[in-house]
Amino acid sequence: MAEKAEERVQRALDSFLVEIPSWGFPDTGTRFGKFRQPGAAGSVAEKLSDAGQVHALTGCCPTVAVHTAWDFPNGLASAEEVAAEARKHGVRIGAVNPTLFEEQCYKNGSFGNPDPAIRRKAIEHTLESIEIAKRVGSRYLSLWFIDGSCYPGTANIRRRKRWFAECLAECHAALGEDQYLLVEYKPFEPAFYHTDIADWGMSFLLSKAAGPKARVLVDTGHHYQAQNIEQIVAWLLDEGMLGGFHLNDRRYADDDLTLGSIDPYQVFRIFHEIQFHAWDSGQRAEIAYMIDQSHNLKPKIEEMIQTVNNAQELFAKAALVDHAALSRFQERGELIDAEECLRGAFSTDVRPMIREWRRSKGLPEDPLAAFRASGYMQRVAAERAGRSVAASGYC
Amino acid sequence: MAEKAEERVQRALDSFLVEIPSWGFPDTGTRFGKFRQPGAAGSVAEKLSDAGQVHALTGCCPTVAVHTAWDFPNGLASAEEVAAEARKHGVRIGAVNPTLFEEQCYKNGSFGNPDPAIRRKAIEHTLESIEIAKRVGSRYLSLWFIDGSCYPGTANIRRRKRWFAECLAECHAALGEDQYLLVEYKPFEPAFYHTDIADWGMSFLLSKAAGPKARVLVDTGHHYQAQNIEQIVAWLLDEGMLGGFHLNDRRYADDDLTLGSIDPYQVFRIFHEIQFHAWDSGQRAEIAYMIDQSHNLKPKIEEMIQTVNNAQELFAKAALVDHAALSRFQERGELIDAEECLRGAFSTDVRPMIREWRRSKGLPEDPLAAFRASGYMQRVAAERAGRSVAASGYC
Amino acid sequence: MAEKAEERVQRALDSFLVEIPSWGFPDTGTRFGKFRQPGAAGSVAEKLSDAGQVHALTGCCPTVAVHTAWDFPNGLASAEEVAAEARKHGVRIGAVNPTLFEEQCYKNGSFGNPDPAIRRKAIEHTLESIEIAKRVGSRYLSLWFIDGSCYPGTANIRRRKRWFAECLAECHAALGEDQYLLVEYKPFEPAFYHTDIADWGMSFLLSKAAGPKARVLVDTGHHYQAQNIEQIVAWLLDEGMLGGFHLNDRRYADDDLTLGSIDPYQVFRIFHEIQFHAWDSGQRAEIAYMIDQSHNLKPKIEEMIQTVNNAQELFAKAALVDHAALSRFQERGELIDAEECLRGAFSTDVRPMIREWRRSKGLPEDPLAAFRASGYMQRVAAERAGRSVAASGYC
Amino acid sequence: MAEKAEERVQRALDSFLVEIPSWGFPDTGTRFGKFRQPGAAGSVAEKLSDAGQVHALTGCCPTVAVHTAWDFPNGLASAEEVAAEARKHGVRIGAVNPTLFEEQCYKNGSFGNPDPAIRRKAIEHTLESIEIAKRVGSRYLSLWFIDGSCYPGTANIRRRKRWFAECLAECHAALGEDQYLLVEYKPFEPAFYHTDIADWGMSFLLSKAAGPKARVLVDTGHHYQAQNIEQIVAWLLDEGMLGGFHLNDRRYADDDLTLGSIDPYQVFRIFHEIQFHAWDSGQRAEIAYMIDQSHNLKPKIEEMIQTVNNAQELFAKAALVDHAALSRFQERGELIDAEECLRGAFSTDVRPMIREWRRSKGLPEDPLAAFRASGYMQRVAAERAGRSVAASGYC
Repeated sequence: MAEKAEERVQRALDSFLVEIPSWGFPDTGTRFGKFRQPGAAGSVAEKLSDAGQVHALTGCCPTVAVHTAWDFPNGLASAEEVAAEARKHGVRIGAVNPTLFEEQCYKNGSFGNPDPAIRRKAIEHTLESIEIAKRVGSRYLSLWFIDGSCYPGTANIRRRKRWFAECLAECHAALGEDQYLLVEYKPFEPAFYHTDIADWGMSFLLSKAAGPKARVLVDTGHHYQAQNIEQIVAWLLDEGMLGGFHLNDRRYADDDLTLGSIDPYQVFRIFHEIQFHAWDSGQRAEIAYMIDQSHNLKPKIEEMIQTVNNAQELFAKAALVDHAALSRFQERGELIDAEECLRGAFSTDVRPMIREWRRSKGLPEDPLAAFRASGYMQRVAAERAGRSVAASGYC
Repeated sequence: MAEKAEERVQRALDSFLVEIPSWGFPDTGTRFGKFRQPGAAGSVAEKLSDAGQVHALTGCCPTVAVHTAWDFPNGLASAEEVAAEARKHGVRIGAVNPTLFEEQCYKNGSFGNPDPAIRRKAIEHTLESIEIAKRVGSRYLSLWFIDGSCYPGTANIRRRKRWFAECLAECHAALGEDQYLLVEYKPFEPAFYHTDIADWGMSFLLSKAAGPKARVLVDTGHHYQAQNIEQIVAWLLDEGMLGGFHLNDRRYADDDLTLGSIDPYQVFRIFHEIQFHAWDSGQRAEIAYMIDQSHNLKPKIEEMIQTVNNAQELFAKAALVDHAALSRFQERGELIDAEECLRGAFSTDVRPMIREWRRSKGLPEDPLAAFRASGYMQRVAAERAGRSVAASGYC
Repeated sequence: MAEKAEERVQRALDSFLVEIPSWGFPDTGTRFGKFRQPGAAGSVAEKLSDAGQVHALTGCCPTVAVHTAWDFPNGLASAEEVAAEARKHGVRIGAVNPTLFEEQCYKNGSFGNPDPAIRRKAIEHTLESIEIAKRVGSRYLSLWFIDGSCYPGTANIRRRKRWFAECLAECHAALGEDQYLLVEYKPFEPAFYHTDIADWGMSFLLSKAAGPKARVLVDTGHHYQAQNIEQIVAWLLDEGMLGGFHLNDRRYADDDLTLGSIDPYQVFRIFHEIQFHAWDSGQRAEIAYMIDQSHNLKPKIEEMIQTVNNAQELFAKAALVDHAALSRFQERGELIDAEECLRGAFSTDVRPMIREWRRSKGLPEDPLAAFRASGYMQRVAAERAGRSVAASGYC
Repeated sequence: MAEKAEERVQRALDSFLVEIPSWGFPDTGTRFGKFRQPGAAGSVAEKLSDAGQVHALTGCCPTVAVHTAWDFPNGLASAEEVAAEARKHGVRIGAVNPTLFEEQCYKNGSFGNPDPAIRRKAIEHTLESIEIAKRVGSRYLSLWFIDGSCYPGTANIRRRKRWFAECLAECHAALGEDQYLLVEYKPFEPAFYHTDIADWGMSFLLSKAAGPKARVLVDTGHHYQAQNIEQIVAWLLDEGMLGGFHLNDRRYADDDLTLGSIDPYQVFRIFHEIQFHAWDSGQRAEIAYMIDQSHNLKPKIEEMIQTVNNAQELFAKAALVDHAALSRFQERGELIDAEECLRGAFSTDVRPMIREWRRSKGLPEDPLAAFRASGYMQRVAAERAGRSVAASGYC
């Protein structure tokens, strides 16, 4: 059995790819300001270079999520140049994220704005993003909205729901054959009283209304306190509606901390539900695993490597669960044995197995140490030292 | 305008009926024990007598929700007797609630139990409850489940979801022409790790799967902290899926306190969304308003009267909102004016209008004072003094 | 009785002064960006001009809280000029807030920083702020810290606690005879894993350790979900340790919304505990009421006037409570009567009494309408149109 | 280093004793009812017998917490008999818990009751409990109160605070030389609006007021969502005011689940702060570790063994942390290295070290398997089958 479990772990690691976001490398902060890092990426070329480092060392991050406004300075016209830049650094462009929140016109919303001209502008930006995605060979259009309201009475919740349905349907119609529309939900921030797509149920209904290629995107930090995220994941899997994840961790709000840094057992349980579903149903769901964190304090590339490492550990632990035994205990109501079956997998130290997997792929056993030894950070910090940085906005 | 607003309030009060639960009159408590009240109801006859008092004094509580196991000692065979007893006290039987949680067999769930024999038993009890509902002329079968699990790994969440869908569909098929199946959600307690129907989205999907006469039941205390309940209400109204409410208030968990005792503005906003939807859509949704509180400390009948009074006040305030003006402010993004439009209605003292409504119906202006003056409580306390009370269970 | 209650309201309004913050007038936002407003204040002179407008129209905002780094460009050397500018606009300088969070050196904290040189720098800045406060005639030094950590293991919580105690004691020693040190607490943001002064208990202990003129500052948005803020206020009053408030409202996190916009009954209960304490103890505690909101969407000056109005309404409602009757009901355990005594005050429409108070002071009855009619906003928007605005930082 | 870490673990396990509660063995439930278990303990003798089994198999549970009303049927007169019974089963009596919540007179509180006669009764019961503690050789009097209120306005929070201070001081005065008064806090349930001792700060102030032998008792389930419990522990350690723990886990409210079943990393961090404090200060705090769970579904004795096992694992992991290295990283602001230092200890599989420790003590390597093989449960289930069980109350 022990040997078979080890094999399961190796196979699980083979299948587990994690997309990293281009916005994980520039300076970010909170509303109280940004603490700047020497060598933080500025241009899209720098971001892709940093991302390429992470993939070179971890071997499991071949794609990079991009934000239209931040990474395609000339919109669609930049697409091929950016794709080429990615290839240069050994990665490909992943999910394309329309940027529907920084411009002043979006003060009262984008797809939910009462003004049809602004909704039109938001749709056009999204349609251009879909074209970019096609041009760079990306299968995912990933949508997050700040839409909502900050004060009771200031928004017509139902009308906004309908505007969202209309806008999403129009965008869905423009998708390529092999593309997916991922619809993210978030219960608060920066809309503080109501958020138009506040929970998985709202994302689900809007996705269904948009069309057959729309899916729910689960950001692990976008939930209420005490919400059971793995149950939501299990339901979405059962409905065939789980599109992917924005991975991160948090204690109070949408803190965008390193995955697994606050509650690793929860992440493990999410990965368990995914692998348990695959065992139970005999087929692996197609899921886009994407990191979405705000690296305000820890060195950005190092934190990205640490995150990927955490994700691999927790995914590998979940691969250790003996699904047949677990299922048997569950059916019989043998609660302690069922629980211990899960907990035992989590208690196991999978780090040796991950090192083994890395060796087998010709990767460094300790990617963080390898990165530090590489001198990359010192080099780019020097190169990037002179240039000015944009002070405002998210990153 | 002021006059028209007053008229709106009178019309709103005419339309606003609140169902009271039979289990609001016996002794209840917490897991730490019950504080007993002299004159607390024991038999179904006593509960219906108490409910009749509330309706006689408030004029807006003509129906009483019942629990199958607690109120129909001989099941279907008790139906006619109970209906007759209700009529005797000037009320009718309202929603019928199957009792799927006290028996030992439900330890690992009812509709979600891995054992098909227990699922069958739970279905049979529900089918009998539907028959009771038909027999007593009730249009609502109201379902709440304790189903879930207390420890990670002990339940197969997806299989339980499917068992729920099957059981609900079978029950739905037995409904009468004019009957509705109300499916309640609750994120925790007494299942502490996962609850099979944890949120409105899960209730929605299961209701849709059950059939066209299934609707979502919103218990105001069954949400996560900070969740925007009125948004959920607005969405359910837009989808035609709001079945009704279990009204109560809470601070931390499912505290089952008096409606409006902790956050009256939230209740007002819920009522506002309902009345705003009616104005916007031109048609009033059919909604079952039901009280579901646990009167552990305050005198039970008095608290029920107080609750009905609170509900009327908050519903009347919501009727004061100028929907046309609000809509105009929302469209133009005039945030302060929109907010003040709502807030102004809440700030208005509607108590004189409610007294006026009561006078116009021949009801006492102050039902609580009238109840205290009636001597009812002293009389039943004496009558009910000798009999033994069941010590265990919810009530 | 009714007449006496009206008199209590007038007296309460006479006593109720609310300080407004200079940072309530420039552009603010969230980490996702700022939505800019025409005429948002830039310089300290502009902020004081806007604040002067609010006081001129409401008559209860004679002081303005300032932030050292934002409002005193030359530190102590700017003090007299700023004080003179305030006088010019009919207001005085209120609480002085050292700015201990924007500089890059504070990445790992200020008073809790492991580096003694940075702690020293933070102390020096605070000592200068105290000197400024003396120079401008302010009685309050108000301290809020971003200090904490974002990841488990990265901070020595106990050592940081001791550094805080040392730094606070040194600052306390520099206070003038009549000055207070207000120590604010906040459970999260921007430190996401642990915050050095996370709750009222920590603020209390550090204040006690600092010296007799240190007090706890309660920001209504700095609590956990479901925390009973009025109980904390009651305890601090009983201990003689309540220094003042940062008033605002929120739904999920530290949303910094308009006071009373989400949960007005909670604000009312806080004001009730204060007035009940005064009645019970026979002496009115000295409390600094200060607004601390982030006016991201609503017009800034209008929102400030709206906030002051809300505060007056809720304070006036609390003045209506019949303390003797309430106390009697509480002693006897007459729960419903006690509750209705409180609730009845909240249900009363105090707007006519507030208009009466304004008339008696020669103030406009509707300060928001008066402001809109004044043309002030149009004028300053034109004047301030050309100048550049700082893009980064909080405001 | 590896070897030294192993030694640290063995030494940590030697020092780690966990007290188990007598009320962990009878039937318990929720307000919705109890699911009964064959062989659940009824009498105090049965509870002590079950507790003796746990200690015999785990070797680290030599004491049993008791509840005065439940375990001393004749009060002080039962003390010697109960102590003898404990000895018979190889254990001793640990913390004595006065039972101040089940009697009807406590409806409006015990130490906070407005009626002085009821406060007196509660004090007398507590004084008797202290005498029992002396008689049975227990060093801990452990106090938890249901006191609070369910509705705004119904309680005078400040007066109740003062009554608490008076009552606690009187009880403190009766303590023996070597005894401690442990004061527990809890933010809600069964008082739903306000709880008289709601958080650690309130417990701290009341303990300080009571006298030098009063300490704060931390129940891990008695916190707000997202509260950083390990920070509270670190502060209490630094203040010399940490008395002990009631250990359990939870997701939403005070769920009283198995320790570590929901968030094991949090428990690990609590244990880390304790061991880090000992390293930093050079002295080990005296801490009473007590389990307080509600074993509603899992077999009671098995869940207790599982809990002890979890506690040992997480305490052992915390013993692996390299404090000198951690401290160095913290001082230098090397955030990733500091975090990885902590996380690495948690990732380590300590189960072999625990088995080694058990072997070295002559204990079974797998106490759960040993218990199942012992036939104890089958035997007592048969013995206890006939007798009637109390249906009401907590257990």
